[in-house]
Amino acid sequence: MLRGDITVAIRNAVMSELAEVGYGRLSIEAVARRAGVGKTAIYRRWSNKLEMVMEIISDVAERKVPLPDTGSFSGDLQLLLMIVSTALQHRIASQIIPDLMAEAARNPQIAETLQRALRTHQQAVGEKLIGQAVARGELPEGTDPDVAVDMILGPLYWRLAVARQPIGEDYLEKFTVAVTAALRATG
Amino acid sequence: MLRGDITVAIRNAVMSELAEVGYGRLSIEAVARRAGVGKTAIYRRWSNKLEMVMEIISDVAERKVPLPDTGSFSGDLQLLLMIVSTALQHRIASQIIPDLMAEAARNPQIAETLQRALRTHQQAVGEKLIGQAVARGELPEGTDPDVAVDMILGPLYWRLAVARQPIGEDYLEKFTVAVTAALRATG
Repeated sequence: MLRGDITVAIRNAVMSELAEVGYGRLSIEAVARRAGVGKTAIYRRWSNKLEMVMEIISDVAERKVPLPDTGSFSGDLQLLLMIVSTALQHRIASQIIPDLMAEAARNPQIAETLQRALRTHQQAVGEKLIGQAVARGELPEGTDPDVAVDMILGPLYWRLAVARQPIGEDYLEKFTVAVTAALRATG
Repeated sequence: MLRGDITVAIRNAVMSELAEVGYGRLSIEAVARRAGVGKTAIYRRWSNKLEMVMEIISDVAERKVPLPDTGSFSGDLQLLLMIVSTALQHRIASQIIPDLMAEAARNPQIAETLQRALRTHQQAVGEKLIGQAVARGELPEGTDPDVAVDMILGPLYWRLAVARQPIGEDYLEKFTVAVTAALRATG
């Protein structure tokens, strides 16, 4: 295998192991076996399990989510909801995220990595989505991006990752109306 | 110890062990040691670890949260936010909830127990809080309690349990205005 291929194979193996057994039970041995590489290939890249998992998670979690401009806040919002709900319903995300969040309660380094990834996404949503809507005159100048992010991502995360209830067409429409009214009221 | 005292001691020990080591690493031995009882006292009550943890968690999680009528939706909402934020910031809750949610992704029985507890609280919020506001004429007749629960609990859970950012006085006020506008718009 080429050097780059080995790194990809290790990254995929780490993600699968995280989904299957969780961080606590993940072992370098199992990752090496699944990736089809020797343990030395791993130790050449990272000095321990925490470092390996954190670098891979940061890479995946901080990847820019494309937030295209659909021309309207309602269109942008529906697109974002689609992207987030697809990501949250993916088997790997639905198992890895709760597991790392549980570890974060005990491990400050994991907590810091997750917080950094989260801030990247929160900023993207706050600046791009809200910024565009304000520029179009759909939301008032003073719209608080902090409240906006909570009002958009919060209910979505709650419904899909905590309550684990499906989202119907009807719900998406009501949600868009509700969020728009909420943000107009705080501006 | 009296029979009831033993049960209380075991329950407290289970909660502390869950917070400290998590469900995966929790052992009947450690619970017995911490509670100051013999392992037989535990096996007389539950046949295994899963049954023990699920019964205790159900008991705690399904305890009715008092939702008093403050006379206004804004008052009720602020009181609820205070109760939920205190609960979510409690060390035990902030470690046990993420841990059990992670286990739920792998264990259907844990998932079912958490979902049941959640539904109890969602119903309470939907019926009592929203019902009172509709009765007072503060929210329209057709307010969707499903959307309402997501719009109230979602941002709160997101901010306190996921993003782990503090809630200031100012935020609470903006949030109340935003949620009220959101719910009026969907009614």
